[in-house]
Amino acid sequence: MATIKDVAKEAGVAVETVSRVLNNRGYISDKTRNKVYEAMKSLNYTPNTFAQGLSKKNMDAIAVIVPHVEHPFFSKVISRLEKEISRRGYRFFLYNSSGDIKNEEKVLKLCESSFMTGALLFSADYDTDMLKRFQIPIVLVERKAENDICSVCCDNKMGGRLAASRLIEDGCKSLLIFNTGNIIAMPGDEREKEFVKTAKKSEVSCKVYRSSALQYMANSHYDIIKKALLENPSCDGIFATSDVIAAQVIQVCDSMGKRIPKDIKLVGFDDVILSTLTTPSITTIRQPVEEIASLAVDVIEKLSEGKKVRSSYKLPVELIERQSG
Amino acid sequence: MATIKDVAKEAGVAVETVSRVLNNRGYISDKTRNKVYEAMKSLNYTPNTFAQGLSKKNMDAIAVIVPHVEHPFFSKVISRLEKEISRRGYRFFLYNSSGDIKNEEKVLKLCESSFMTGALLFSADYDTDMLKRFQIPIVLVERKAENDICSVCCDNKMGGRLAASRLIEDGCKSLLIFNTGNIIAMPGDEREKEFVKTAKKSEVSCKVYRSSALQYMANSHYDIIKKALLENPSCDGIFATSDVIAAQVIQVCDSMGKRIPKDIKLVGFDDVILSTLTTPSITTIRQPVEEIASLAVDVIEKLSEGKKVRSSYKLPVELIERQSG
Repeated sequence: MATIKDVAKEAGVAVETVSRVLNNRGYISDKTRNKVYEAMKSLNYTPNTFAQGLSKKNMDAIAVIVPHVEHPFFSKVISRLEKEISRRGYRFFLYNSSGDIKNEEKVLKLCESSFMTGALLFSADYDTDMLKRFQIPIVLVERKAENDICSVCCDNKMGGRLAASRLIEDGCKSLLIFNTGNIIAMPGDEREKEFVKTAKKSEVSCKVYRSSALQYMANSHYDIIKKALLENPSCDGIFATSDVIAAQVIQVCDSMGKRIPKDIKLVGFDDVILSTLTTPSITTIRQPVEEIASLAVDVIEKLSEGKKVRSSYKLPVELIERQSG
Repeated sequence: MATIKDVAKEAGVAVETVSRVLNNRGYISDKTRNKVYEAMKSLNYTPNTFAQGLSKKNMDAIAVIVPHVEHPFFSKVISRLEKEISRRGYRFFLYNSSGDIKNEEKVLKLCESSFMTGALLFSADYDTDMLKRFQIPIVLVERKAENDICSVCCDNKMGGRLAASRLIEDGCKSLLIFNTGNIIAMPGDEREKEFVKTAKKSEVSCKVYRSSALQYMANSHYDIIKKALLENPSCDGIFATSDVIAAQVIQVCDSMGKRIPKDIKLVGFDDVILSTLTTPSITTIRQPVEEIASLAVDVIEKLSEGKKVRSSYKLPVELIERQSG
């Protein structure tokens, strides 16, 4: 493989000149520039992008740190971020923290020491004092802004309101909501609060059930769904704060002989591929993942250029009609 | 942030000495080594891993190139590979080629020029002559070995045989198979061939339906499923060559009033999360994704050390019992 030295020799110029052409630095005459380009072409030389990144102390790389990779919501997020980050000419690094704050700290340290442009953190738990110690742009996605760490998320309150309004308009009188109980504030909490508030306003009964952190990590909400349906036999409307939970509601209802949407109407949250593949398919609140991805990368770029950003950004959600409610 | 120069100054040694300690190169006395370590600790210095990689001309990084990120099978594969690659101390790069051979070539060129350890290619289409031109280890996953490019995949023939045997043992007399029609040989083809062969041996009727490449890319197989069920009203057993197709079979059957597994028994392929979340859940052939991930990284490591590897590796599959068949 040709090196920068070979290019310099072939073009009859100094190595420093080739480096200046590659990094677009300082004055170079068109004649010299062309000689260097021709030498690169004839030697089939590709510059080492890491060497270029080191030389300008910016790797043009963005790290994405998620607690799960296979969960349908994170798959969708990773897919859209990979597209957005590559499209803008950055390298895309994916790290799975397994929700462990120590892993997150380790990865962020690596990002900082290797001149990455910034990191997008989808944390299950985090310590903003720890985050503030890092000297690279960090943006929280789908988590609450705190302590000057910027956050990008969807309008979870609006989601809760839309879900409740939809079920109430459909004539439901006895609502249940399935959420995940977590140690830290999660986006599901705002969905839940606003859903309950909207139900109260319309004087419709509404009960909240929360899965344990263990059930959340294992992605298994069957026990709590079954318990709730046994305790509330007259339930006729359900809001699940994720499509994965909604799919499990369909399974439990089926096993108990309750028909969706005939006996119970169901609204999910996220709008991941799964919501199109269940029977019935899931009426859900769409998170604008493309827009979240684009905005999150915008914020990283602004922060890396020393520009001011807002402490948090919220993007509107919408109801997607399918078969379940 | 402390630099290597600061560490050298603090330890009272030359920059080259610090570099030798970091890269574990040449003789260094314990006394000097300890001085460098102490200086690194007191300055909170983290070596730039890219600079280390450049210095030894190996980035300890493995690229994973997939045609989709959000498809449930690729989500699972990405999840397992991220774990395996990180566990062994490599950086994990993810690239979405969108199945475009030109993108693949571009990414491989980047991997080669930036001293990556190797690349794992899940291609929808590829040109082995093009692949052979690269001087870094490349392993094909779930694709056929060809032209000296090593491949790691599951035993797709065994999968087709297991699926057919299961449906035949269950008393099915009229089988359908849904596969994706592609320009190049895909793993689904071996599943299909062996399924048909096994059905023939048992003198059970078996018809093949294939989605177009367009339907495969859009992940939408509804039209072909509906057509097949209308043309074969006595069908009592279906093999779908992926769980995504199987989920769509459940939806179409439901819309036509056919009950699974009562009227039609269904076996899928892959064993992704989706197969546990449909109603009914999908009896499927499990791809050993953990083992595939581990073996694929093994092969990259062996190739990068100049060791010999086999031209292809095949891992056994197993039938996972759920509700659909």
